[in-house]
Amino acid sequence: MKLSELAEKIGGEVLGDPSVEVTGVAPLESAGPGQITFLANAKYIKMLETTRATAVIVGPDVRADNVTLVKVKDPYFAFVQVVIALVGYRKHPFAGVHPKAHVDPTATVGENTVIYPGCFVGPRAKVGRDTVLYPNVVIYDDCVIGDRCLIHGGAVIGSDGFGFRTVAGIHHKIPQIGNVVIEDDVEIGPNTTISRAALQSTVVGQGTKIDQQVVIGHNTRIGPHCLIVAQVGVSGSVTLGHHVTLAGQVGVAGHLKITDGVTVGGGSGIMKSIDEPGPYVGTPAMPYAYGRRVYNVFMHLPDLQQRVREIDARVRELESGDQAEIV
Amino acid sequence: MKLSELAEKIGGEVLGDPSVEVTGVAPLESAGPGQITFLANAKYIKMLETTRATAVIVGPDVRADNVTLVKVKDPYFAFVQVVIALVGYRKHPFAGVHPKAHVDPTATVGENTVIYPGCFVGPRAKVGRDTVLYPNVVIYDDCVIGDRCLIHGGAVIGSDGFGFRTVAGIHHKIPQIGNVVIEDDVEIGPNTTISRAALQSTVVGQGTKIDQQVVIGHNTRIGPHCLIVAQVGVSGSVTLGHHVTLAGQVGVAGHLKITDGVTVGGGSGIMKSIDEPGPYVGTPAMPYAYGRRVYNVFMHLPDLQQRVREIDARVRELESGDQAEIV
Amino acid sequence: MKLSELAEKIGGEVLGDPSVEVTGVAPLESAGPGQITFLANAKYIKMLETTRATAVIVGPDVRADNVTLVKVKDPYFAFVQVVIALVGYRKHPFAGVHPKAHVDPTATVGENTVIYPGCFVGPRAKVGRDTVLYPNVVIYDDCVIGDRCLIHGGAVIGSDGFGFRTVAGIHHKIPQIGNVVIEDDVEIGPNTTISRAALQSTVVGQGTKIDQQVVIGHNTRIGPHCLIVAQVGVSGSVTLGHHVTLAGQVGVAGHLKITDGVTVGGGSGIMKSIDEPGPYVGTPAMPYAYGRRVYNVFMHLPDLQQRVREIDARVRELESGDQAEIV
Repeated sequence: MKLSELAEKIGGEVLGDPSVEVTGVAPLESAGPGQITFLANAKYIKMLETTRATAVIVGPDVRADNVTLVKVKDPYFAFVQVVIALVGYRKHPFAGVHPKAHVDPTATVGENTVIYPGCFVGPRAKVGRDTVLYPNVVIYDDCVIGDRCLIHGGAVIGSDGFGFRTVAGIHHKIPQIGNVVIEDDVEIGPNTTISRAALQSTVVGQGTKIDQQVVIGHNTRIGPHCLIVAQVGVSGSVTLGHHVTLAGQVGVAGHLKITDGVTVGGGSGIMKSIDEPGPYVGTPAMPYAYGRRVYNVFMHLPDLQQRVREIDARVRELESGDQAEIV
Repeated sequence: MKLSELAEKIGGEVLGDPSVEVTGVAPLESAGPGQITFLANAKYIKMLETTRATAVIVGPDVRADNVTLVKVKDPYFAFVQVVIALVGYRKHPFAGVHPKAHVDPTATVGENTVIYPGCFVGPRAKVGRDTVLYPNVVIYDDCVIGDRCLIHGGAVIGSDGFGFRTVAGIHHKIPQIGNVVIEDDVEIGPNTTISRAALQSTVVGQGTKIDQQVVIGHNTRIGPHCLIVAQVGVSGSVTLGHHVTLAGQVGVAGHLKITDGVTVGGGSGIMKSIDEPGPYVGTPAMPYAYGRRVYNVFMHLPDLQQRVREIDARVRELESGDQAEIV
Repeated sequence: MKLSELAEKIGGEVLGDPSVEVTGVAPLESAGPGQITFLANAKYIKMLETTRATAVIVGPDVRADNVTLVKVKDPYFAFVQVVIALVGYRKHPFAGVHPKAHVDPTATVGENTVIYPGCFVGPRAKVGRDTVLYPNVVIYDDCVIGDRCLIHGGAVIGSDGFGFRTVAGIHHKIPQIGNVVIEDDVEIGPNTTISRAALQSTVVGQGTKIDQQVVIGHNTRIGPHCLIVAQVGVSGSVTLGHHVTLAGQVGVAGHLKITDGVTVGGGSGIMKSIDEPGPYVGTPAMPYAYGRRVYNVFMHLPDLQQRVREIDARVRELESGDQAEIV
């Protein structure tokens, strides 16, 4: 594709020869002739001087003499558009339901949806249109998957919630007669599992993206446009607002409410509901600025202990002086 | 079903019209005409005044004028019985081994057991009767699954334990020639993995319930009637007694023993054997009451540090006073 | 097999009758007649007196009168050789690609490689020789698997990295056009997931062993001969050197570098790059010896708080004494 054509697609201004051909994409440190790349972080600006790339997408204030630039407002997003234009998303090797998948005759599958080998779609389940189920995805009975969803290999949607009533030491299984509803434009990572509700629906909101090996407990409602990173565990009956971000390995205890716009740092343990937007960190999770102070003291606990010991000794010294005076 | 019939099943006393028809179940906040629900937690008692449910199962001391009540000792357990009576457990869309499953000819499968598409049952494995393997479950060679077990989609039972002997920087694989034994009445969540023993058996005891994405290491023995919640990781050669509960994301280090009746809070890290029953919490795991105190100080570490600084300053003041006196 | 034959294989010296027949292996505490076992840890030396084993492999300095010994330098490694000689690694019930697996016609599979039922090998993927894909393994398009690899049930290699560009609250998917490269002699545990790179390759180095339910993020490079234990999560764009060991449930934040020979204790959270080899522990991860001191103070925080309160009271006492003097 001609650079001028690409530049037009991304609304960019070319500084250099707009007639060069661009055939591929690469990161800044390794891009070579024929490739286009981008600079989004000023930290890497030195690399511009030595790059062998044919063109570099940059922000408004960047200059360079030795390489053709394409100036845009948001270089990273512009680069994403370029990748889509030059390479695009995965082309599937077949259309529709693969014969090695198993779709129950009472299930429905929308137009233009691709279901890979090894998938299972259970009785009365509904899968929307333009959706992809990658290999070995399992959709239990009565679950609903929206349009334009991507569900990666080995994800399991709608298995029984972990619900038991223990009487005299025996755990009696509570029938899990609800389902899971995945709204439109949701992506779900490989081997993620989402439990069906006991009575009603576990819900994942529109546009939410879930990474690999995430657990969503039963009756939980994830709002729209959330980002749930790998190995997060959200317990049962939790409510997340919209635009909540949970970084990797976060845990959320049962029955909590997390309001819109909360961002929680990796590995944190959320033990209480959060009703103020903003960043949180730590176990138990605390507002970010405060949590940093807590962990800063934590990392220096031996110093604090030593200081207390020294003060103790000095006070004893003072006390013995007092004693001496009294005597 | 008539309410009187249901009430008889659960040994309940009807306060109101026992001849009404009940056709479904729902939670208290959303139950409507024709539906039966329950009140187990006094916190929600106000909802009784506005519910549109046809009947509510309640404990002995609850009263209400506007809705028919069914009084029982344990309203939650009674409700579970009602759900079983009115809706029941999942009805499978086929019987026996599905043709899209793969059962090795040397494996044995008990009567009335259901094996979904995509399952693999390896050489010489034994699966008991009245058991269900949901889609894409993998049972490695020589493993034994009991009667009345439920194993959810994508679980892998009996893969090789993580055993290597490192010599001169190379990790040599130790053949894992043991197996996994799952006793009767065990439930295992989706994408959980249980490693086979190096020489003998990894065991999950009778009546134990394991949630999704749990890891059980090789040679480990889980006692009967335990509850192991999502994303728990139990290392190799661990022994758990009976009625042990590990909440979500708990980690247990290798070679430990956890005695009967221990309950460990979510996200805790167990670094030492536990030989007293009761609740534990934290990383490293501590008895609950003590652990709460530790985390309470932890959450206020900036205050503690500030207090130490202030005391330090006051001591310096006193010291300089002493100095002044001496001078 | 005759004991003399086995002893020759492992370069051991027999103390007792070398003509006895050995037919099986077992751990020291349960080995019986016909079985050979080993003693690697002096802690268990008492068991030698009561063992009913036919022979015990021991280190150079061990003596016993009641049982035949085989003396070697490294009893554990010698025992592994014996297990391999007497029992060996798994014999697969079929050869090549099982008809219930799905290998894309554009993929290539090496000689002597075994692909179990339910596996998926995508377009243009390459699987080396003498490799085993256990049931339900998913290899996405364009990924490369080396020779002599073992990939356990349900592992997913090459699903899309979790890459989005958020504009006006909408998460736009960045095409993930890179791949995953698994070098030779790598073992990957069940239900582990490894994301493909956005542009280039996510790499797992030669001889590295990865346990069950591990997450490797996109663009990450794991060096050779690492050990990555169960439920570890390595974020995207991380670089691990060679011989790095991450124990169970460790988390590694994005874009970090971990140098050669680092060992990190279970459950630790790595928040910063590590450029010194050695053991680390804790969240945030600290050098082991220092981290132990931090956690030691942490576990006694109520004592520290109490001591500070007492010092405070004593200082107040001293201050009031001063006041008294002044008055």
